[in-house]
Amino acid sequence: MSHPLTKVSGFQASGVTCGLKASGNKDLALIVSDRPCTWAATFTTNAFCAAPVLYDKALLKQSGGRELRAVLINAGIANAVTGQRGLQDAEAMARRAEFEASLPHGSVAVMSTGVIGHLLPMEKIEMGIIRAVESLSPAGGSDAAEAIMTTDTVPKSAFVQIEVGGRQISIGGISKGSGMIHPNMATMLATLVTDAPVAPADLDAALHYAVNRSFNRVSVDGDTSTNDTVIAMASGAAGGELLTGEGLAQFTVALSDVCVDLAKQIARDGEGATKLIEIQIKGAKSEEDAAKAAATLATSPLSKTAIFGADPNWGRFLAAIGRSGAAVDPTAAALWLTAEGAQAQMLEQGRPLPFDAPALSAAIRASSNVIITADLGVGEAETSYWTCDLSYKYVEINAEYHT
Amino acid sequence: MSHPLTKVSGFQASGVTCGLKASGNKDLALIVSDRPCTWAATFTTNAFCAAPVLYDKALLKQSGGRELRAVLINAGIANAVTGQRGLQDAEAMARRAEFEASLPHGSVAVMSTGVIGHLLPMEKIEMGIIRAVESLSPAGGSDAAEAIMTTDTVPKSAFVQIEVGGRQISIGGISKGSGMIHPNMATMLATLVTDAPVAPADLDAALHYAVNRSFNRVSVDGDTSTNDTVIAMASGAAGGELLTGEGLAQFTVALSDVCVDLAKQIARDGEGATKLIEIQIKGAKSEEDAAKAAATLATSPLSKTAIFGADPNWGRFLAAIGRSGAAVDPTAAALWLTAEGAQAQMLEQGRPLPFDAPALSAAIRASSNVIITADLGVGEAETSYWTCDLSYKYVEINAEYHT
Repeated sequence: MSHPLTKVSGFQASGVTCGLKASGNKDLALIVSDRPCTWAATFTTNAFCAAPVLYDKALLKQSGGRELRAVLINAGIANAVTGQRGLQDAEAMARRAEFEASLPHGSVAVMSTGVIGHLLPMEKIEMGIIRAVESLSPAGGSDAAEAIMTTDTVPKSAFVQIEVGGRQISIGGISKGSGMIHPNMATMLATLVTDAPVAPADLDAALHYAVNRSFNRVSVDGDTSTNDTVIAMASGAAGGELLTGEGLAQFTVALSDVCVDLAKQIARDGEGATKLIEIQIKGAKSEEDAAKAAATLATSPLSKTAIFGADPNWGRFLAAIGRSGAAVDPTAAALWLTAEGAQAQMLEQGRPLPFDAPALSAAIRASSNVIITADLGVGEAETSYWTCDLSYKYVEINAEYHT
Repeated sequence: MSHPLTKVSGFQASGVTCGLKASGNKDLALIVSDRPCTWAATFTTNAFCAAPVLYDKALLKQSGGRELRAVLINAGIANAVTGQRGLQDAEAMARRAEFEASLPHGSVAVMSTGVIGHLLPMEKIEMGIIRAVESLSPAGGSDAAEAIMTTDTVPKSAFVQIEVGGRQISIGGISKGSGMIHPNMATMLATLVTDAPVAPADLDAALHYAVNRSFNRVSVDGDTSTNDTVIAMASGAAGGELLTGEGLAQFTVALSDVCVDLAKQIARDGEGATKLIEIQIKGAKSEEDAAKAAATLATSPLSKTAIFGADPNWGRFLAAIGRSGAAVDPTAAALWLTAEGAQAQMLEQGRPLPFDAPALSAAIRASSNVIITADLGVGEAETSYWTCDLSYKYVEINAEYHT
């Protein structure tokens, strides 16, 4: 009943099958607010960005981040590298949803995920939209979360509630992860909904803050998609004045918490993943430098296979950090590895320390969470980053699939 | 007899066992010139660069690129993250080789590859040096090439001969590849020898030109080591004036050819590799941009697993290029895939083209060389890059090994 997405009052959702997934699973999700929302979004930086990304970017600009009523998402076909026809299809999806749900012109954003270079079968999509509108329900969050899945093995959702100046504010969200689907894309999509009253510019700033510390700090294999999109909608149904000052700061942190929760779920469910790896970089010259070191470590195949093999192979971690371009003092650097029930420091002031490798290896093997912590020894900045291990299964999923 | 390294007149080499490899295989190589050489080198940019790298950098600076007589290389232990003691050991290796081979002070460069964070067993190394000097021979190139191997499955060497203004000039070289060894490092080492008369500054420029188009254009898994080193020695034994102008340009191209040959051997022998992948980027705004696009594609796990699976999955290649940061015109981009006996264009002016996917897949499967060609559609610059596919075996090699 109370799914994290539709627990936020005033939001309904649905997820239906329109025939884009060969499996026959749900593949079209609709999320609708009962009143106009302010909204903000972040998009992929891939040069080959997909038609729905171009559509949403234009809509966001044109609307000034106001008057959004719904987000429509299909899985199975990404509508990417589809030229002018793809743009027309993205717009037609939005128009059709507006028509069927009796929403104003320009009030629906769209997302797509799936195979690239293929046109959407618009008849199927349009029939699906009719069914999705009919199925809208305050209990529809789980159907929507399921419909946007691609190679995800579990649906992903998160929720937080905070009190701001006597008002109770809810934030809910769903996301899909870096499964590379059928045959092409690792697409990260998320939709966040809240009843908070937030001005467009403030929502934009809050979303960028949150995304930079969550979805932009997660990697399964470093491959960024043509379709990555995060949209936040704020309905203001919680009532009262627009959030400002301290209240806005509280909201920003809460939004960030929801995004971090979703991002960690994506990393844990990475293709073939057996372990969630959290990377903590501290002692960096700047947060940007910390992120650079973390991202290089998070995408190092050597480091990721070592964790899969339960091998506390700190030389690989260190070498990845060393080639990241982040400022590091080799004579001050330190390194720790933490698994459930075990922690070891492997490097101190740039010097290897003895540690019980067999015990730590056994702990890694038994653990579904591993934390690599590195101190770069040059400053005060820090960041966290999430990834997963690199397994045989990853190769199988991505090599055995055929176009 | 005439191994590519020692085919260059005036150079002798040897490779002996000193006990650093558990296998008992050869692990210490020595390459000696019968006369002082001008020399140049390129080194890893990893912040945690190893003791031998620091030693050679200082020696190069101090010598002004003159008077080098020998290169001594051990495999098995990288002498990296070993602090002050590591530096002393690197210097002691050079001193001992100079003493045993009756060479002047400061005439021997050193390289190491293998496990990091361990000190060198200097007694074994010193006994090995004595044997290596005794074993020096004009037929010793193959022993040296073998001794520097780590997880390489084959020794690597290359040779070219050119005529410059009536003089015959030879260039030979050996290298070892991006096998991640015991338990830590992907180290790329190469030593190039030539009888050409070249001034230090010219040799330096020629080596940088060559390395930028060869060893800096090869990736097995994107992990750059603490020890990567390329040294070129020019003895001048071919006689005559120092190379200048057209002759120097010819020499530079020939040196580049030797380096490209060695770099391709490294990519083909990448851990778990079943196919050499050549990436050709054209139509780029600059050569730097072309390299950026090529490097991102070459390190994209999705693209590398697709080739392993013989899947002409162009969406993955395109997405990798799109996220590389290189300037690209999505409406002008083009993409081709070439395997033995088959070529297909998959994208033209940014639009997908129909192609015979099953036939191309069969050709990829049967082929040990695959070429991915992309036109970014924005300029005239181009580059080549080499990598290998990502297989189950890669995961096995790097996960099953234990520290």
